[in-house]
Amino acid sequence: MNTNRDNPNQEFPESQVPQAVISRLSLYLRELQRLVREGQETTSSTQLGSLFGFTDARVRKDLAYFGQFGYPGIGYRVEELITAIKGILGTDQSWEVIIVGIGNLGRALLGYKGFENQGFRIVGAFDSDPAKTDTQIDGVPVYAIEHLADFVTSRKIRLAIIAVPAMAAQKVVDQLVEAGIDGVVNFAPVTISLPKSIQLIGVDLAIELEQLSFAVVNQRENP
Amino acid sequence: MNTNRDNPNQEFPESQVPQAVISRLSLYLRELQRLVREGQETTSSTQLGSLFGFTDARVRKDLAYFGQFGYPGIGYRVEELITAIKGILGTDQSWEVIIVGIGNLGRALLGYKGFENQGFRIVGAFDSDPAKTDTQIDGVPVYAIEHLADFVTSRKIRLAIIAVPAMAAQKVVDQLVEAGIDGVVNFAPVTISLPKSIQLIGVDLAIELEQLSFAVVNQRENP
Repeated sequence: MNTNRDNPNQEFPESQVPQAVISRLSLYLRELQRLVREGQETTSSTQLGSLFGFTDARVRKDLAYFGQFGYPGIGYRVEELITAIKGILGTDQSWEVIIVGIGNLGRALLGYKGFENQGFRIVGAFDSDPAKTDTQIDGVPVYAIEHLADFVTSRKIRLAIIAVPAMAAQKVVDQLVEAGIDGVVNFAPVTISLPKSIQLIGVDLAIELEQLSFAVVNQRENP
Repeated sequence: MNTNRDNPNQEFPESQVPQAVISRLSLYLRELQRLVREGQETTSSTQLGSLFGFTDARVRKDLAYFGQFGYPGIGYRVEELITAIKGILGTDQSWEVIIVGIGNLGRALLGYKGFENQGFRIVGAFDSDPAKTDTQIDGVPVYAIEHLADFVTSRKIRLAIIAVPAMAAQKVVDQLVEAGIDGVVNFAPVTISLPKSIQLIGVDLAIELEQLSFAVVNQRENP
């Protein structure tokens, strides 16, 4: 296990927390945020899991990796559990994020409202096409790709989203790594290589359609 | 359990196959497709899981929901397992898919090469802006939203991708349901309601950043 140098209070032995649990934390967080908007102050593991078809035992076991959050006879306090999950996910702080590649997907991501709500602020975008740079899109400045490394280093940017064409992805990632990036979400439809110390989330949009195909072919009931 | 009227050989009791298993099938499929491109003919549960950090036991247990695929002393035959997983996911057939909403995200999805490779052919796009319709984007005809229901019914379209603004999403979905759609991938950042018999996959792009945040804060080693 690598210890976490930034948040010494948040050390979870990697071997003990399966990736699927971390993914479900995001889903629980969304449901809790919805409950807040509806004015609900407490909830149960049954309610928290039901939207996604998870059992109450599943929810309790997932949360138990990180501590004891429920109260006997009350359940979970919604606001408190939101704070706890954000602390676990690391989104109790605001992250400055950059996007590289301002094609259709990059533009869509620049306009995506869901990032800011969850603590991710897009502070810069980069493209190799001079026609797209030195302007602003959705309030975000767009710079020439030549300024990428400098920006990451001087602004101490830790997270980047890659939305460039497949053939450009590895070169962009190499520059980001060199400049000191900590993690990358890759939307380019290609496998990229990274040093083991840099975090990578690959997004494959076809997976959503495959999951839908399975559900349709097998006539699942949506929960 | 609802039986599957189209593929009577593919009936999996819903209660026995967790959603997470179905998600991992997509990941195994991608890794197998990569192995084919590299000319590899057989693989092991260890290799199949290693890219994603899953144990060999996890891989074997996941596949065991659907049958016996390995050969003693050989492992899995790559091409054979690809065929089997596609059969399970329902992507051994080609699906005709439509996209509703041709903003930046819709355009990005129209140009996304990964869909066709996995058996999803975008055959029509729809938008309410007359300036965008009666044209083609990336070879896909774009129609006025008024033609949506007719198109779905007459072409017997079963899968749709929603990429409209949040406020328009529910109305579009209601039209699709009325027209006989079977499943929807919703990219609009809003919760939509559907009859239980219609399948729904909601995509929340902020989840990818949250997962990255956790990995960075906890210094996970990327597998």
